[in-house]
Amino acid sequence: MTAIRFTKAQATGNDFVLVSDPDGASPLSTGQIAALCDRHFGVGADGLIRAVRSSHHPEGPSTLAEEPAAEWFMDYYNADGSIAEMCGNGVRAFVRFLLESGLADLEPGDTLPIGTRAGVKDVQRTGTGGFQVDMGRWRLSGGEPLVGADGLEVPRPGLGIDVGNPHVVVALSSREELDELNLVPEPRVAPVPPNGANVEFIVPADPLVKDGVGRVHMRVHERGSGETLSCGTGAVAAALAVRYWAGVDAPNHWSVQVPGGLVQVRMFATEEGEHVALAGPAELVFDGAIALPEA
Amino acid sequence: MTAIRFTKAQATGNDFVLVSDPDGASPLSTGQIAALCDRHFGVGADGLIRAVRSSHHPEGPSTLAEEPAAEWFMDYYNADGSIAEMCGNGVRAFVRFLLESGLADLEPGDTLPIGTRAGVKDVQRTGTGGFQVDMGRWRLSGGEPLVGADGLEVPRPGLGIDVGNPHVVVALSSREELDELNLVPEPRVAPVPPNGANVEFIVPADPLVKDGVGRVHMRVHERGSGETLSCGTGAVAAALAVRYWAGVDAPNHWSVQVPGGLVQVRMFATEEGEHVALAGPAELVFDGAIALPEA
Repeated sequence: MTAIRFTKAQATGNDFVLVSDPDGASPLSTGQIAALCDRHFGVGADGLIRAVRSSHHPEGPSTLAEEPAAEWFMDYYNADGSIAEMCGNGVRAFVRFLLESGLADLEPGDTLPIGTRAGVKDVQRTGTGGFQVDMGRWRLSGGEPLVGADGLEVPRPGLGIDVGNPHVVVALSSREELDELNLVPEPRVAPVPPNGANVEFIVPADPLVKDGVGRVHMRVHERGSGETLSCGTGAVAAALAVRYWAGVDAPNHWSVQVPGGLVQVRMFATEEGEHVALAGPAELVFDGAIALPEA
Repeated sequence: MTAIRFTKAQATGNDFVLVSDPDGASPLSTGQIAALCDRHFGVGADGLIRAVRSSHHPEGPSTLAEEPAAEWFMDYYNADGSIAEMCGNGVRAFVRFLLESGLADLEPGDTLPIGTRAGVKDVQRTGTGGFQVDMGRWRLSGGEPLVGADGLEVPRPGLGIDVGNPHVVVALSSREELDELNLVPEPRVAPVPPNGANVEFIVPADPLVKDGVGRVHMRVHERGSGETLSCGTGAVAAALAVRYWAGVDAPNHWSVQVPGGLVQVRMFATEEGEHVALAGPAELVFDGAIALPEA
């Protein structure tokens, strides 16, 4: 058995095993990733991120061809070892890892481009010690499906939003209703989305807008994972939905309280249309070494 | 912040953070233990075990006064930082840690006495690379309460057994029935045990006894923790209950399949009456270092 060094990190409670493999010389098998992410028999995490130079990753050249070019590729995997295109909270944990490992620099005001399977993502430092990630374009995915859940007496209308992955956002009437939801049984979305969807339940804060910032509370059920402490694209979808419902005077800066912490969502104009950005904290939790099972 | 070194270990899927503190110089606060055991913001574990010499632990002298005297005290805490008297799977992980850290020796056939809040526990190596722990005396705790659970059409009679902590064991009729149980909602025991109880659902294997060994499959709901991959005292209670139901010809060696692996339970006569022993594997998973929050 080979031993590898790793770092555990978390971003609003979404947690990741990070391994450094600059030359892309040590790919991990699906089974090895699942073993590392197992919470009882391994390290335990929501996902695994390999830090590989874009020039040494099979999927890196396409991100290197973009402008700006990304030196580092975020080789992201779900806890079961399957490939994932992107993870909004994972990007922050990845950048924290690159910076604290001395693999990259990021001065306040500068931008660090990160290669992902969903293209290059631009990352900046926030004023509060975290990072902001430009998540790119978004769109209403059409449809206001009805959503039922354990704890809701009748199904509620949701709003379909695509942020690279599919979401349905549902507004509830009170914090009590949000707290009493039981998200162990999967929420029922009708009609059923063709590829499933993450479902975000939100409650506006009172007042909704304070000091120019919109504020919502959110819980989320992720496709295939169940309820999680945080979902980056889910927070983005929640802010976009509430702004849509709030109408033309709604702000372009939203603060979203998730069970694992607080994230900020900002909408801003670009040459190709509106982009949405996600900002929040990311921390390295511990370093370790573990024997890898055979590939 | 102080950084500490730790080892993560598991025994049939019950997992533990182990720290070495031979001189008892570095106690951990309830908050620090809960932070270390948090699965998203810390290392993540079912419990934390501090290895302290009995001579340097406040509760050590009483175990040193026993015969044989225990050099090492297993200072065990639940994941929420509360004190626990004992943990059958934790003892095996603790002994593995002592041996691989060079803090103790245990030759095949010899006995290593371990100090716990429930007295000294004698540990021996098994022939298959694991450890056997003498769990001491047990008793029928009186009563055959009715147990209801999600997935059972009608409540079933259970058997109350005390193995240092209270258990109710319930026999089901098939593997399908066991697999289809939903233990997310807590099983309902009537009358309600005064201090609660762990509830074990078991199905006898077919044939029940093979090569002189009784065989059962088990799932367990632990007080305050929900369903777990393994519960040492629960496996012991399950074997005792099935032997009781099976009658006078039943064997004194039982093999219990839990979701996290396979453990062995043996009953044997001692001068003070019958004892029951639990045997199974225990593995160190990884080593790490983490910054401790302030106490």
